[in-house]
Order: sequence, then structure tokens, then C-alpha cells
Amino acid sequence: MSVIYQRVALIGLGHIASSMFWGMKASGLADEVTGYARSAETRETAREIGLCDRVCDSAADAVEGADLVVLCVPVGAMGAVARDIAPHLKPGATISDVGSVKRAVIEAVEPHLPESVHFVPAHPLAGTEQSGPASGFAELFHNRWCLLTPARADATEVAKLRRFWKGLGSKVDEMDADRHDLVLAVTSHAPHLIAYTMVGVADDLQRVTENEVIQFSATGFRDFTRIAASDPTMWRDVFLSNKDATLEILGRFTEELFALQRAIRQGDGDHLHDYFTRTRAIRRGIIEAGQDTDAPNFGRGAHSTGRAE
Amino acid sequence: MSVIYQRVALIGLGHIASSMFWGMKASGLADEVTGYARSAETRETAREIGLCDRVCDSAADAVEGADLVVLCVPVGAMGAVARDIAPHLKPGATISDVGSVKRAVIEAVEPHLPESVHFVPAHPLAGTEQSGPASGFAELFHNRWCLLTPARADATEVAKLRRFWKGLGSKVDEMDADRHDLVLAVTSHAPHLIAYTMVGVADDLQRVTENEVIQFSATGFRDFTRIAASDPTMWRDVFLSNKDATLEILGRFTEELFALQRAIRQGDGDHLHDYFTRTRAIRRGIIEAGQDTDAPNFGRGAHSTGRAE
Repeated sequence: MSVIYQRVALIGLGHIASSMFWGMKASGLADEVTGYARSAETRETAREIGLCDRVCDSAADAVEGADLVVLCVPVGAMGAVARDIAPHLKPGATISDVGSVKRAVIEAVEPHLPESVHFVPAHPLAGTEQSGPASGFAELFHNRWCLLTPARADATEVAKLRRFWKGLGSKVDEMDADRHDLVLAVTSHAPHLIAYTMVGVADDLQRVTENEVIQFSATGFRDFTRIAASDPTMWRDVFLSNKDATLEILGRFTEELFALQRAIRQGDGDHLHDYFTRTRAIRRGIIEAGQDTDAPNFGRGAHSTGRAE
Repeated sequence: MSVIYQRVALIGLGHIASSMFWGMKASGLADEVTGYARSAETRETAREIGLCDRVCDSAADAVEGADLVVLCVPVGAMGAVARDIAPHLKPGATISDVGSVKRAVIEAVEPHLPESVHFVPAHPLAGTEQSGPASGFAELFHNRWCLLTPARADATEVAKLRRFWKGLGSKVDEMDADRHDLVLAVTSHAPHLIAYTMVGVADDLQRVTENEVIQFSATGFRDFTRIAASDPTMWRDVFLSNKDATLEILGRFTEELFALQRAIRQGDGDHLHDYFTRTRAIRRGIIEAGQDTDAPNFGRGAHSTGRAE
């Protein structure tokens, strides 16, 4: 793989940024990668484990001379970071991000950026339940989608960022920011809130000890806890910044749940059976689309967990 | 491993029964295993793939002379099967089952059984999203819990069934039937209904194409679809026969969900952050209890899916 951006700056050094770094090193996509994290402890860890060619003590230093700057901070922190780095950006640089919400990020970041840079928002649909600078690995993005929401960005620069993400192993597609936020509300944001809720209910339940919940957690609940172990700050920001779409989907969810609860209460087995038969088909579609596997040993060996946002 | 029951009869030849058969063969727990399934097609498949030493054309034939009879049919069919086999049971035999609900199974089965047999209900917390006679594999129960709800059963016979399940690789515990049903409502039944609901919502949503949902399904939703691909008949019966506990937990779930929705609407980030931090701890407990792993490559290789009852 040849170099796509000579110098890349990663702002925020968590799970996604550290995976990007190891991926860039593995595939030779950049000559030099600088990094910055707000926390001194994170910068220290990064230096210890060799994360980034150069860890800087300010975001301004990290972005200086960078051809690509990627904002890898929680969605709620993107605006402040953009404001801080804006005066130090190299003319002609591409600015991107990895936020799970796109409209709010665009609104927070774009006003701060000078005319001379290219803003191409991105969202890699990847991640595990891990977080922090030591949790990244080069293969995180392999065969995962990365969605770009470039709007008015220059086509040449968009194509370059596409090549970059393909170099990290991703499949890349483009989408309108609002559509992205709705699709992700359905496929990711609402499911996460629901998983968080169910795990919270189990924890609260005085009549069932936490020990029983943990010990006898069948896969239903175990999958939920995996989802609900994701980074709290990241997810708080996702819900607050994709509020409308998330609340809309949750409203639809509640309607459906009430209909199924009524069917249970009334003993309407046909309704339940029909519903469960229909949902099976979607699963088959996902397996056929190559987004998951139906190999029957989930949760067994060393190869069996983690989660994507 | 030595023989524990000379002859074992499996009534119903789906995912659990076929896994039990291959497990018994692998560990030499039984001399002969007979099997019966209501559907001629299933019996035909079983004969073709060598599932059971002898596939019988009636449940009566299958249980004749059996030292252990295991009912592996959906919970709603247990009563009728018990009634059919009762006159043919060998005195001193142990009757067990693998149903996900225990109180309803006991109420449906026990009245039909003669005094001369031992009834020891059981529930292996294992399974994948697969179903049918060809889907079983010997390792399904390895390191999974099997919960027995023996009530007044003879201690010697309970101990024997414990050894049998340990021989299949399970960890075994005993529990009161009502407590089992409540614990499972929290850890399995309610999470399944919620997953079914969310997948149904995604399917219904006119503004998002099914293709987008499938293609861009991040792990949150992908885990839900795996859960929601489970056998519709089995799950209809679970919900109808564990109605009270399931509805109670769903009621608590809805309360919590509304509180989180309100926090999102009002922009109460602290409430969300605190909640998400609390749920993270449960996940750590499950990993520490050895019920799952936090290896970071979930959904990647060949070793990454399936689901438990």
C-alpha cells in the first residue's frame, strides 16, 4: 500500500484512534502520525506503548503540517476541538472525524473551519466494548463499513479519504448526514439505549440477586450486557446529539412492545408466532449480506466478543 | 466416562435433542439412545444423518424400556406428550425435559405421570440461533449451566441426572421452579421479546429501507437480530407459559426506558452518563464469572455467532 497522506494527526487517542494508528502502520498509509489527547495520563500511556510516531502536548502542535486531521473525541467535544485547532490547520488539509452522529458534528465543527481546508465527516461502523488508548488493534476496521457524509466537499479529497479507509480494510459508502443519523438510530442508537435499559432493570431488581443474573445470564441478556458495557461518555453524547431520530425510533419501539405485551397477556399465540417468523427473515438477510456469521459456537472460544457502535 | 443410563429416549429431535445425542455418543453416557419426532420429515432426516441409535415411529415405542426419557419439545407440547407416553414408561425410569420455563411444564406434565417414575425437570441454558435435527453438536452444553428444578424428586435420581448433565459438559445447579422462571424472565425471556420488538420496528420502518438496515447494521442491532432469529414456536410457548414473570419484567423495563427517554428529551447528560456507568459493572461481572469473554474480535472469524436459549 502506498502513502495516501504524508502526515496524519489523530485528536483523541481512544479505541478508534489507536486502531487507526496501528492500521496505518500495518498498511503504510501515512509517513508520520501525530497524536494528542486531553488527558496527560492517556498521552503518557500512548508514549509508553508507542502509539503515534509523536505524541504532542497540545492539539495545535499535533495538527501543524498535517495533511489529514481526524477528530476522534466524543461527539459532544468535537466543536471545542475544532475551534482550538482551526488557526493551526495547514491550507489544503482534510479534516475528518469518527463520530457516530453526523448532523450534530457538522453543525458543531464546520463553523470553526477556515475556507482553505476540506471537511469530510466520516463514521466507521466498528468498535468493541473496549475503550482507551491501549485497546486498539489494526484489524478493527476490516470488512466494516465506513460511511462518509461529504456534502459539499471537493470530490478529489473525498476520493482520497475513501482510499484511506479502504486501506484500513473498510468498505466505504457515502450518505446524506440526516439519513445517516436516522439509519443509525435504527441499527445502533435505539438498540443501545434498549440494551442499557434492560441491563439496568436486571441490576435494580431486588427479588433477583445480581449474582443470579450474572451467573445464569443466557445469551439474550449476555448480548445486552456486551452492548451496555460501551463507553458512557461516547453514548451520552450520541443520544443527546441524535435526539430526534432516537426518540422517534424509541416511540415506534414502545408501540410495538405494547402490542406484543398485549398478545402475551391475551394469550394470542398466533400474533406472537407471526411476528417472530417475520423477524427471522431479517437475520437471514444480515448473514447473507456478510455482516455476521451463523457459525454455531458464539461465546465459546477466544474469538467471541467485543462490539461495534 | 461410564454409562449413566443404559437406555435414553429423546422425544422431539430438534437442536437441543440432537446436541444431547452427539454429546452422549462423544462421552459414552448411554448404551442406546432412541428418538421420536412428530414430523415424518424430521424422523427421516434423523435416520439419514445417524441421529439416534434407533428412530421410532411413535413416542410409545421410543420410551419403552428407557431409563431416562427427555422431553425436548416446545413447552406448549409437553403436556400432550407426557399423556401419550405415560402408559409406556418403565417403572423406576427418570423423566426430564429441557423446557425454558419450569412451573408451566411441571403443571402440564406431572399430573400424567405414574407414581412409579421420577420426574426431574431440567433446563440447559444453551442453544444457538439454529434449529432442527441437523443443527446439533456435541459441545453445545460445554461450560453452560443446566438448572434442575427437582422439587420432591428422589435425591439419588437427582444426583444421577446431575452426573448425566455434567457428563455432557454442563455446570449443574438446582433451583425452585418459580425462582427459575423469574430469573430467566430477567436474563432471557424479556431480553428476547425486546430484541424481537426492535427487529420488527426496523423491518416496519418505511423511511429506512430493509437493505440499509441490513447493510449498515452495527453490532447493537446485529446482536438483536441474532436473538430474534430463534425458533418462533419455542418462543411463543415460552412467553405464553411464563406470562406473569415476563410481563412484570417488561413493566419494569418500560418504566426505566421512559425515564431514559425523558433524560434524552431534556438533555440530562448526567443521568445518562450515570446510568451507563452502572450497567458497565454488570458486564464486568459476567466476564469475571466466565460466562463470556471480552476478546475484541467479535463477529469476525468463523468463531463468532449462535445463541443460547
